[in-house]
Order: sequence, then structure tokens, then C-alpha cells
Amino acid sequence: MYKARIQRVLDAMADLGLEQMLVTDPDSIWYLTGYTVEPFERLFAFYLRRDGGHKFFLNRLFPVPEAPWEQVWFSDTDDCVSTLASNVDADKPMGIDKTWAARFLLPLMACNPGAGYVLASDCVDDARACKDEAERSLMRAASRINDTVMERAMAFIREGMTEREIADYIVSQYAAEGCDSSAFLPIVSFGAHAADPHHEADQTRLKAGDCIVIDMGCRKDRYCSDMTRTFFCGTPDPKYAAIHDLVREANERAEALIRPGVPLRELDKAARNHIAAAGYGEYFTHRLGHFIGQTEHEQGDVSAAAKALAKPGMIFSIEPGVYLPGEFGVRVEDLVLVTEEGCEILNHVDKHWRSVG
Amino acid sequence: MYKARIQRVLDAMADLGLEQMLVTDPDSIWYLTGYTVEPFERLFAFYLRRDGGHKFFLNRLFPVPEAPWEQVWFSDTDDCVSTLASNVDADKPMGIDKTWAARFLLPLMACNPGAGYVLASDCVDDARACKDEAERSLMRAASRINDTVMERAMAFIREGMTEREIADYIVSQYAAEGCDSSAFLPIVSFGAHAADPHHEADQTRLKAGDCIVIDMGCRKDRYCSDMTRTFFCGTPDPKYAAIHDLVREANERAEALIRPGVPLRELDKAARNHIAAAGYGEYFTHRLGHFIGQTEHEQGDVSAAAKALAKPGMIFSIEPGVYLPGEFGVRVEDLVLVTEEGCEILNHVDKHWRSVG
Repeated sequence: MYKARIQRVLDAMADLGLEQMLVTDPDSIWYLTGYTVEPFERLFAFYLRRDGGHKFFLNRLFPVPEAPWEQVWFSDTDDCVSTLASNVDADKPMGIDKTWAARFLLPLMACNPGAGYVLASDCVDDARACKDEAERSLMRAASRINDTVMERAMAFIREGMTEREIADYIVSQYAAEGCDSSAFLPIVSFGAHAADPHHEADQTRLKAGDCIVIDMGCRKDRYCSDMTRTFFCGTPDPKYAAIHDLVREANERAEALIRPGVPLRELDKAARNHIAAAGYGEYFTHRLGHFIGQTEHEQGDVSAAAKALAKPGMIFSIEPGVYLPGEFGVRVEDLVLVTEEGCEILNHVDKHWRSVG
Repeated sequence: MYKARIQRVLDAMADLGLEQMLVTDPDSIWYLTGYTVEPFERLFAFYLRRDGGHKFFLNRLFPVPEAPWEQVWFSDTDDCVSTLASNVDADKPMGIDKTWAARFLLPLMACNPGAGYVLASDCVDDARACKDEAERSLMRAASRINDTVMERAMAFIREGMTEREIADYIVSQYAAEGCDSSAFLPIVSFGAHAADPHHEADQTRLKAGDCIVIDMGCRKDRYCSDMTRTFFCGTPDPKYAAIHDLVREANERAEALIRPGVPLRELDKAARNHIAAAGYGEYFTHRLGHFIGQTEHEQGDVSAAAKALAKPGMIFSIEPGVYLPGEFGVRVEDLVLVTEEGCEILNHVDKHWRSVG
């Protein structure tokens, strides 16, 4: 499995004319090797060479077990970038991973100024964007738990509860289901708070008539889920209920188009046009979706600027929203897996608006 | 307060001959402006100019309120790096923050190739390393909570509990004390697990005779605490108890030396020599300490390679340890604040070994 994954990256490097590349995103290193650590501020790199002479660059503090690649170790008191610089080709272009920090990149450029440095993370990220069979199973399992916990959260909500209480409950249910963790802090937003798509749950209490946006995901065996549903406490204002219907339809219209070969920007357009036709275009303030896997936001998006076509194995979110500042917000989000024939929606919680509490 | 902080950074830029700098660490931006967001993979920068023409670079999704600086906005579909490149001096050296990602830095270098790019985060990080009065109060408050929760954890521990149960209990107590969050996942390590300084708490159950390393910290009003204590379940092996005494003494010897002007490497040396004299030098595998503030590891360390001298306002950890692979581990850690006369130890939980459970 790892051999196949590495080969996909080496092939992409060949297309860019790169002989060497530093993979430094810990999740990408895990994807390619099955080994990873959380390096915090320390250097951690898997160096890929087209000639097969891959190397691990490792701090002595990292508990990385025996691996079938050369290991170059350093300690906190060593000049780790010099060590790295003297272990790579100093005069050939070097592929660089997108998240690599300036604290390493600028000194490496100073050590080996003749190399030429190329942003090359697409070589890994395009591979990671199309999940293989092992990954699809893990993604389905994480979304299955997310469905279960969303249903429990719906049953748990009562008027007078705080956003934070509901967010904490969701986190506790992930733990009970054996998750590694939340994929991100659950977003629980009441009423006008929902107009901020990234509102942080606080001590505000739920009142009758409030909308309730819940955007939540867990991480299980390294792979993430992510889903949003919007409810109402008691009976909604008819205007808000109608906007909810509109957003749900936008979600469904985009999902109905998904099949291999469709440009991802067409999905964004279908959802956006539906919302704009009803006069709310300016209140759908973000892209339609993002890719997801080991982290809740992976490289790749579903937006007006997206250049990619859908390919089997891609997993991304479809999450249109409408946000009326000071008033109200709604978002309806699923994860979808592109299949050979169309798509598999990984979430199964009903998307129609419902009264809770 | 923010004006004084910005002035310290501008003065440091002057020392490096820099007219302009991009501050991109969200915690540094908060430190200098009182505004921040979690940008995830999006561009977020506070651009400092010696002539005072500072600018914020902001995604339209960020809920940053009115600020007294020019704001340059872009959306997810814009080429944000081009926007940035056209809003800075293209032909003067540009200071770059240490964590800035290659996905932004390499394209900026391509847009403005004539500028020259200088790793300049020390300008901000050296300022952040010396806490002002407001920050000292927040750091004391976070460590006070950490003391309280450590005492509670000690009383909570029983033979047969899992590492994860104890870690979860600590997190729940932080929530009960009104913390923002844990500063990091609590490390709870039994017996041979303690030989890995970064062991992740799992389902292993506590047995009589095990050592118990607890390394924990909370985040309260953005500022972090961090403390380690090592206990024993029942009666310890006399060899392990003696190693615990040795490590505690190493901690105390280092702390006794702290005053303005002392080289930080001398603190590391004092602790390391004490452990080495007893024959365990090779088992003290990491630096003596790290700086801390808004994040649990900030720029600056206390190691054999440290070049800095202690200055009033610095807050760092003193955490010697001995790790015997397959057997046992011990670490004793406090946070200390360098004062005008010496140091203030921010933790007050007794450091002698004790039997719990």
C-alpha cells in the first residue's frame, strides 16, 4: 500500500521534472510511510528521491521505529537544517511541501542557494485527494459515528441549554464511541451567532425561535468526518424556514451533479445560482466545500476558482449556507465520495429542518 | 499596551536594518494588536512598517472588527499572495515570521524576487519572551489552576484506572475551572510508558509499583501553564525512588541559579551535571526547558545550545528527566518567571515523590 502511494508521488514529481522533494506535513509522511510523530516546532521530513534513495530526517526525541529507509538523526542542540542541507542534492531543484515553515525553508535556501525551490506539495496532495480503498472504509466509519452523534445531539437539546453544553456533549459522545478526538471544536451557534460561519460555542442560552447550527466532526483511526445540520428551537419564523429549504435544495442540487469528470466549480455554481435566484447570493459568503481526510481541511476545494474535475475516490464537503448578519444563519453540509458512477453521500441524517428542544 | 509592544518590534527591526516585516503567527498578531483569528489554511498577516504604515491582510471570512490600521481584504477565490505582493515594498528586504508556510512564502518570492527575504521572527519572539505585567498576571493565574487540578488528580488516582481516564479527568477539571482548553493533551504515563517523554495516554491500567508521570497544562484567557510531577502507585522500587530524588534535586539546583544575567545554558548544565554525576546522564535525553506563553512551546529554550541570558519577565520550564527504556521514567517540571532579583516559581505542588492510588 505504502509502495503504491509513494509511486504515485514519484510519478507526479517526474511530471514536474523534480528529482527530489521534502515531504514535511506529518499527515503526508504517515500517508506515505505509516510512521509519523507530532514534531511541534522540530524538523521532521521524509525526503523522496526519484532514484529511490529516500531518507527520514528525525529528531532523537521522536519515537519512530525501524523503517526501511535511511534515517538521519539529529538532536535539539544540532543545526538540523545544515544536516539536512548536506544530505540532499545541493544543485538540483528541490520540491517543497506547502506547510513547511520559513524557519527551515529560508535557512535551507541559504545553505544550498543553487538548488531552486519549487512548491511541489500537489505531488502528494493530489494523491491524498483520491482516497484508496483502505481510506474510504475509514472515512465511512468516521461519518457513521458522526451521524450517530448528531442524532443524539438533536435528542439532547433543550431550551435554556448553552452552546458550550451542547458542544461538550458532542465531544463526550465522540469519546464514548472510541474516537481519537473531535476533528475540530464543534460549532454550535444559536440565533444571530449563526450568521458567523466560524462562531465559537459560548455560554449563550437557547431561546424559543432560535435557529441552531451544529457543524461537527470526529477523528477516528486518523480519518475525519464533518457534517452540518440546522435546527430550530420550537417554531421557526416562516422566512427562516424558507431560507433553510433553499439552502437544503442548493445542497441537493450540487450533490445530484457529482460524477467523475464534472468540474468542481460547476458544483459551486449550481448551489450558488439556486441561492442567488432567491435573492440571497450575497449572503452565501464562502466556497461550497473543501476536501477532507486525515485533517478536516485538506488541499483541494469546491469553489468558483476550483480547477479540478471530480475523480473517483475524492471526498469533499458540500456545504452551502446563508448568513444574515445580526439575524440568523443556516448551513447544510454532507461529505460525499466520488464513485465510478456518481457519488456516495457519507452522511445520512435527514436534511429537512426540524424543531428540537 | 499594544503601542508599546509594536514599538519593541519596530526597534528590533531597526537593529536588523529592516523597513518592513510580515507578522503571520496568529498569536503574535494578537500580541501586537489584540485581534486574531484561526486562519486554518488561509492567509492572515499583520504587515509592520517602520514608517508606521502598518496593514492587515484579511480574508473576508475573518470576523476581525474595526482596527486602527489599513485593512486589505481578499476572498477565497482571489490570488491572495499577488494582492499582498502589490501592497508591500517590492525592492526592500522583507522580514518573515518563522512559521509562515511555504505555500505563501515561495509564491511571494516569485512575485517580488528583488526583495530579499530575512527570517526575522526574533523581532517579535524576543519581545514575546519577556512578559509584561498583564501577561505575568495571566501566566500566574493559569499556573494556579494547574496546581489545583494536579492536587485533584493526585487524589483521584486509583490502582486499576487507565491512563486515558486520568487524562480525561484532568481535562474535565480544567473545563470546570473555566479554562479555554488544555494547553496540550495531558501526558499520563504508567511504568515503562514513562520512558517515552511524549507518550500518549492510552487504555493501560495502573498497577502497584508503577511510576506515574503526569505532564499537564491548561490555557486560560489565552495563556498557558505546564507542570510535571511523578508519583508511584503504592511503594516504589528503591532504585526508582532514588532516581526521582536525583531528578528533583536537578530541578531545584537549576532553579536556585536563576537570576537576570545568568546564561540559560548554565541552568541546563547544572541540572545535567547533577544527573550525569549519578551515572544517568545519557538517560536525560532532552533540553532542560522551553519558553511558554500563549502556546505551550514558544520560541526560546533552555539547553546546552541556548545563547540567551536570563532577563526579567522571561517565563520558561525547568524540567529535567531520566528515561530508562522498557523500565521507567521520571520528570519534575515547574514554570519559572525571572524577576529583578531572582525568580518566582509559578508552581506550588510539592515535588517530592509520593505514593498515590
